[in-house]
Amino acid sequence: MRRDAAKLGVVTSNEGKLREFRVLAAEYGVEVYPIRARKPEIQADDVRVIATASAAVLMQHIREPFIVEDAGLFIDALNGFPGPYSAYVLRTIGVNGILKLMEGVRDRSARFVAAIAYADSEMGVKVFTGEVRGTIATEARGAGGFGFDPIFVPEGWSRTFAEVGPEEKSRISHRGRAFMALMEWLLSERIL
Amino acid sequence: MRRDAAKLGVVTSNEGKLREFRVLAAEYGVEVYPIRARKPEIQADDVRVIATASAAVLMQHIREPFIVEDAGLFIDALNGFPGPYSAYVLRTIGVNGILKLMEGVRDRSARFVAAIAYADSEMGVKVFTGEVRGTIATEARGAGGFGFDPIFVPEGWSRTFAEVGPEEKSRISHRGRAFMALMEWLLSERIL
Repeated sequence: MRRDAAKLGVVTSNEGKLREFRVLAAEYGVEVYPIRARKPEIQADDVRVIATASAAVLMQHIREPFIVEDAGLFIDALNGFPGPYSAYVLRTIGVNGILKLMEGVRDRSARFVAAIAYADSEMGVKVFTGEVRGTIATEARGAGGFGFDPIFVPEGWSRTFAEVGPEEKSRISHRGRAFMALMEWLLSERIL
Repeated sequence: MRRDAAKLGVVTSNEGKLREFRVLAAEYGVEVYPIRARKPEIQADDVRVIATASAAVLMQHIREPFIVEDAGLFIDALNGFPGPYSAYVLRTIGVNGILKLMEGVRDRSARFVAAIAYADSEMGVKVFTGEVRGTIATEARGAGGFGFDPIFVPEGWSRTFAEVGPEEKSRISHRGRAFMALMEWLLSERIL
């Protein structure tokens, strides 16, 4: 008897995120599909709070189980900037703006944080986080990934997130770690 | 016969804003008082959308008429950055971060935009905007005002918003203009 592949909806309009979720889910035999709802987002310093609030609002309209993610790059020397507003900052001052702000800055430590909120009508909303520490490069390198990947060098690596493929990135990325935590929970709860 | 002074609640935890609203309202014989509710804010590129959404949520809890404001500094050469996230940007990279981003940038034009949402149970939510154009100074000047005032020189001026008193600033500021639009409407509707 063959079990149909489990499916999981992802509310996102970010093709880069969707691609990574597909890679991550495939490891568990789960198929990810996009839900093209507009994601409502509140302002908060904590990506967990933002993702949870988004899921809570979306639950009113989306009937099937889904996940929604919020992520950000937090640079220590910039007091956490751009943090939860990474998408807006990328769209306005971009990677070059961050590099300019980091000119002459010695402490280049930073971390990527992802919060994945899972929602279904029975379980409510549950949030899972993942984090990866690293440093801000002095120039953009690599054509892979998306967002601030070209300037983020994960701890213990010499290449940026944009210089490796999605499989390699996902193995250690904030998104990968948050997704693993989600999957462990889904399996332990026998939801998947 | 003496008419009691009209009163208007303002949802804000920003003392600088409150001070300016007091100055502005006094011109109309209106007394402003703070409502110390936590302001819920959504993420959006348009301060009108943010202020309107904040008012709509706050209306569920606040029984008296009130205003809530959202404002931002939009710098042309930075594609509108820091825009609606000005408070967060001020708290993280600050005035010096903006000056660094603007180093060597020839087009220094910018605008301050304020959106004041007025809410009462009868009229619903109505939003008023004000805008002032100007340029980003090459260094911070002045101890008055708040936020990005020390680096904003309004069109036709040589001094920054932080180098003048609240009365002078309010006469031409984004906040002053939005507040005037609100007052005209309140008077025309005989609410005040």
